[in-house]
Amino acid sequence: MLADLIFTTPAIEAILADEAEWQLMLDFEAALATAQAAVGEIPESAAASIRAVCAEGDWDLEAVRQQTLLAGNPAIPMVSALRARVADRDAEAAPYVHRGATSQDVIDTVLMGQLRMAIALLLSDLHQLTDLLTRLANAHVHTPMMGRTLLQQALPITFGQKATAWLDGLVRQKGKLQQLAGEVIVLQLGGPVGTGDSFGEHQKTISETMADALNLGSPTHAWHTQRDRVADLAGAFGTINGLLGKLATDVVLLMQTEVGEVREGAADGKGGSSSMPHKRNPVSSTFMVAIAHRTPALVATLLSTMLQPHERAAGPWHAEWAVVRELLRLTAANLHHANDLISSLEIDTARMKSQLG
Amino acid sequence: MLADLIFTTPAIEAILADEAEWQLMLDFEAALATAQAAVGEIPESAAASIRAVCAEGDWDLEAVRQQTLLAGNPAIPMVSALRARVADRDAEAAPYVHRGATSQDVIDTVLMGQLRMAIALLLSDLHQLTDLLTRLANAHVHTPMMGRTLLQQALPITFGQKATAWLDGLVRQKGKLQQLAGEVIVLQLGGPVGTGDSFGEHQKTISETMADALNLGSPTHAWHTQRDRVADLAGAFGTINGLLGKLATDVVLLMQTEVGEVREGAADGKGGSSSMPHKRNPVSSTFMVAIAHRTPALVATLLSTMLQPHERAAGPWHAEWAVVRELLRLTAANLHHANDLISSLEIDTARMKSQLG
Amino acid sequence: MLADLIFTTPAIEAILADEAEWQLMLDFEAALATAQAAVGEIPESAAASIRAVCAEGDWDLEAVRQQTLLAGNPAIPMVSALRARVADRDAEAAPYVHRGATSQDVIDTVLMGQLRMAIALLLSDLHQLTDLLTRLANAHVHTPMMGRTLLQQALPITFGQKATAWLDGLVRQKGKLQQLAGEVIVLQLGGPVGTGDSFGEHQKTISETMADALNLGSPTHAWHTQRDRVADLAGAFGTINGLLGKLATDVVLLMQTEVGEVREGAADGKGGSSSMPHKRNPVSSTFMVAIAHRTPALVATLLSTMLQPHERAAGPWHAEWAVVRELLRLTAANLHHANDLISSLEIDTARMKSQLG
Amino acid sequence: MLADLIFTTPAIEAILADEAEWQLMLDFEAALATAQAAVGEIPESAAASIRAVCAEGDWDLEAVRQQTLLAGNPAIPMVSALRARVADRDAEAAPYVHRGATSQDVIDTVLMGQLRMAIALLLSDLHQLTDLLTRLANAHVHTPMMGRTLLQQALPITFGQKATAWLDGLVRQKGKLQQLAGEVIVLQLGGPVGTGDSFGEHQKTISETMADALNLGSPTHAWHTQRDRVADLAGAFGTINGLLGKLATDVVLLMQTEVGEVREGAADGKGGSSSMPHKRNPVSSTFMVAIAHRTPALVATLLSTMLQPHERAAGPWHAEWAVVRELLRLTAANLHHANDLISSLEIDTARMKSQLG
Repeated sequence: MLADLIFTTPAIEAILADEAEWQLMLDFEAALATAQAAVGEIPESAAASIRAVCAEGDWDLEAVRQQTLLAGNPAIPMVSALRARVADRDAEAAPYVHRGATSQDVIDTVLMGQLRMAIALLLSDLHQLTDLLTRLANAHVHTPMMGRTLLQQALPITFGQKATAWLDGLVRQKGKLQQLAGEVIVLQLGGPVGTGDSFGEHQKTISETMADALNLGSPTHAWHTQRDRVADLAGAFGTINGLLGKLATDVVLLMQTEVGEVREGAADGKGGSSSMPHKRNPVSSTFMVAIAHRTPALVATLLSTMLQPHERAAGPWHAEWAVVRELLRLTAANLHHANDLISSLEIDTARMKSQLG
Repeated sequence: MLADLIFTTPAIEAILADEAEWQLMLDFEAALATAQAAVGEIPESAAASIRAVCAEGDWDLEAVRQQTLLAGNPAIPMVSALRARVADRDAEAAPYVHRGATSQDVIDTVLMGQLRMAIALLLSDLHQLTDLLTRLANAHVHTPMMGRTLLQQALPITFGQKATAWLDGLVRQKGKLQQLAGEVIVLQLGGPVGTGDSFGEHQKTISETMADALNLGSPTHAWHTQRDRVADLAGAFGTINGLLGKLATDVVLLMQTEVGEVREGAADGKGGSSSMPHKRNPVSSTFMVAIAHRTPALVATLLSTMLQPHERAAGPWHAEWAVVRELLRLTAANLHHANDLISSLEIDTARMKSQLG
Repeated sequence: MLADLIFTTPAIEAILADEAEWQLMLDFEAALATAQAAVGEIPESAAASIRAVCAEGDWDLEAVRQQTLLAGNPAIPMVSALRARVADRDAEAAPYVHRGATSQDVIDTVLMGQLRMAIALLLSDLHQLTDLLTRLANAHVHTPMMGRTLLQQALPITFGQKATAWLDGLVRQKGKLQQLAGEVIVLQLGGPVGTGDSFGEHQKTISETMADALNLGSPTHAWHTQRDRVADLAGAFGTINGLLGKLATDVVLLMQTEVGEVREGAADGKGGSSSMPHKRNPVSSTFMVAIAHRTPALVATLLSTMLQPHERAAGPWHAEWAVVRELLRLTAANLHHANDLISSLEIDTARMKSQLG
Repeated sequence: MLADLIFTTPAIEAILADEAEWQLMLDFEAALATAQAAVGEIPESAAASIRAVCAEGDWDLEAVRQQTLLAGNPAIPMVSALRARVADRDAEAAPYVHRGATSQDVIDTVLMGQLRMAIALLLSDLHQLTDLLTRLANAHVHTPMMGRTLLQQALPITFGQKATAWLDGLVRQKGKLQQLAGEVIVLQLGGPVGTGDSFGEHQKTISETMADALNLGSPTHAWHTQRDRVADLAGAFGTINGLLGKLATDVVLLMQTEVGEVREGAADGKGGSSSMPHKRNPVSSTFMVAIAHRTPALVATLLSTMLQPHERAAGPWHAEWAVVRELLRLTAANLHHANDLISSLEIDTARMKSQLG
């Protein structure tokens, strides 16, 4: 869609790119082999060969994409391709590729890796936004304006108070997201049926070593079909988008011709009209409202996909994959537009005062 | 609906009853007057009169319900009724009723009061459930059964591991809910436009005194249109229902005639069939799956209603009222069914073993 | 909840009352026995006894509600209660009660009966609304006002054109709902596994006779786990609420103090404020926006519950019961508020003209 | 995402490609100029020049994508690019480009053009699927199997009856989608505020001529903020995915090791496991279940975005763009997987019979 860029950012796209996903898959396999070699489960020479191949480039991702349609998930063709190349470099190492692991271990760990990077990005953008809003609130501590309830003029407030209200929830959610990430961004390593038995007696050590290497937390249990971590993150993203949508709704309303108390900054060509060139339209705030309309349903999907049967789900798990990433894209885009909006928002203090008449 | 009891419990109904809601409204007004008298904002005698009337019974709730349709919310007719009765008892006290406050202060504080009680109930039921699951997991540490991925038999696990997996997420969410409640169950007290100015110079003290009296936290700012607290709670309830739905899905699948590894306990008349009297159907687990299908959408609603314009919303706020309470009912019912289910679940260890053949 | 009346109407409550549901259950059983007697499947005297008991009053609905929790659905205790009373009146007739039928036949047919009545109500309210809007549009063919895009003043339109736009979709949806009801409001009669075999060789005649008696369509197949009819109706209700939400959004925006072009009619006490008695707030339009925020998620639930396994679902079907009825309540309430709103909407044509400056 | 192909098809991607979207935009402008020339609103030579440029290739779509971020929608940079090139070819024609039209006219008409093509595709796939299911049902009229209610074995049915049940809803929905498409796939042409006034006295003729040229219906009114057509289509797609999800749920359950009555066809490498090479997993049915989990929320979004203020929305409209296209992708993919599944489904009639024991 020609309008796709509204709903993403280059930075989040880089994290979610197929190449990045592929590299995280290889990182999983390299970390697994390394950890298994460290406890003597596989030969160190095999681990070295696997690591070396995982550092190679020039893989046929299009083949992986196509084989995913037959295999049911991309980890299966990844393992095949990796094992084949390892066999080519060091025939004895090939049987040690992906040893004890299952597709879901790879795919969930890759998701967590992307979430870790994406959340760092979101927190950085949130930090910028709360900084901007703090400055805005401070600058307008004494800027009186009309408070409005049920869209009726009610009693005076200050624009500083309005900006503080926007800030309040975002500060809260920034803290929560940081804490949540620390709790739920964890390795997945359970083997075929999630018990970890396939990794042998050193399973716990392997898991902790891998988690450390991959910069992830180490869970007490595999969580193949216990998806509350994903759901909790989805909820956090949903809440942040809700707060941004509220902020943007206020801006759209304050920009109304009849109100005219704020105005989006005028970048060249921003907010034009194809039929009325003189008009200045909300753009960033419009995008933010649009995004905030899209995110609640995605959260709902990630709650409804929690009903994952037995030790691996046939469908609900697969449904998560695109949805959680779409939620990341939308959240990143929303924060980007918010920073754009607030950093160039024009405040018409005279107009604000005049409404207090 | 004749099947309504499936989706609620007597305990949660008591918390959400109109009479309970009404009493919480009066508690708000009594606490407000008391706190204002304590800082000298209103005469102590007025506060005493207001308190006395707030302790009276025999109010015409049906009139309040009807007047809500004209007033737009139930706080307006409540304040009228209260003020009228106070005027009757102590004419000088009447002007001090609801002083400085706005409808949303009352209504949001009442919601928080109900949430506080409801969450205590949910945590108690969660505690019982995690106890039951701990016992179940311990009892079956050595009960082998087939692990199933994509609904195919894969490799052996133990039933203890399955029960531990169910337990794992619930323990996590119990902790999270407890922490979250401590953070977000707070007083609402902002006055007409959320600035607190209407409460005068002692606003902070009044707010803290009231919060203390009502057993709620005291927020740094009013949150009339910053609804992340409600959304966070909704997300937590959504996640809990997702975990319960996963557990119930497993039970329904394990109860299949062809699998037959577990069976719901046979209370008299439980799980009968109108056409096939010999059949034993899943009942509690069926109800749990049903509930888990209903909750994700309610969470989505509570995210989409976050876009609340200006200092009070015309619609999105009102949409919250029933939805958050429905979510409480469903969560309470789901936990109740779960405790019923687990406390009487029959495990067919022989059948489990036979599948391993 | 003290505000419950916002989200329902007396007329829809009458249709959805437990007593009405119960009577529709008995109607099903009476119609079944009658149709079976007509083809000689059961003795006419048995049918007469069953009919007579189904016309009796004074049933213990509270017992039915409680037994539903054990039985899994309300049809099972209903059949027990009915059979017991028939046995008491005519012992030989008792075995012919509910013969060949299954719980889902009763419950789905009752739902369809309620839908039939509810849709008649909705269509009548829709008809009133399109009448009101037609009159409004005609009255303001020449009332100029500002057209607004992206909430910016753009170019003039007439208020008649705005009213016509509101009308346009509603006329379309009225026609669609009428047509849809004619297609999908059908009997459910499949017996235990949906094949109809349990009704014997005259199954088709029995089904058509019953459908006729119950004022329902006669489907070619039972539809126990094919829920597209329910989903289609949900979608239609969702769309209607969306159109009403758009209308109400416009009114809320036009009522803004700074715009002031329309105003809700001033019933005594309507739109007051607990803190600012002089203020006139949107009420009906606020309620409409609130309802329109609640309905999309309910439609999503009724789509997600379509994944009903095999010949009867354990959960997804049960999830439908309350949700489709809540959707009926909300749609009825929304139309009621819309008629209230439009029938007393005050148009400030002078203010409209002044904005065109 | 490396698994993206699961959720789309090449055929739907071709319809939704940026190049196809761009061409539909140019088609809109060419058809507009042609229709305006036909009634003498613009010179025929200008129309000829515009048409000629609209047939040219080699446009800078990346620039359009980037400018969309400033302009707020892709029609604005498209009109600029088109006008510039027309000016270059025929300076006198340039002012006649996009005359009287607004961005939303272009964007909504393009969406309708894509919907028209996509629905033709979906109907063709639906036709193939109902053909396959008809054959399957006919082939198994006499194949007995166990009917299952609440996932318990109940009474015998035939596999033909099960296939007929799957077919029943799909036939119904195929007819409905065809009819709906005939009703709602219409031109958008309202000009800046949706009144059509900007097109002059021949507006109706222009609109009908354009609709004819673009193979779209001609609506009585512009529908910039009356989005019931989009919502109705979303509902239809939602229902189809629900039916497919039910079918796939049945297949997943019937494929369980313990049931084993059907099996997905064994393409080379299909349904493998990264940890257990001997296992045969559901693949197509897993994908279908995954898709059916994603679509209800998207429908909800398209219902919640109906609340579009005034004559053009700032946000809710923009939210539609990606969501309706995602719904098309998912529906196309679901139908594709369904055809794959049914065309190669292996039926184990012996196993079916053995369960009847």
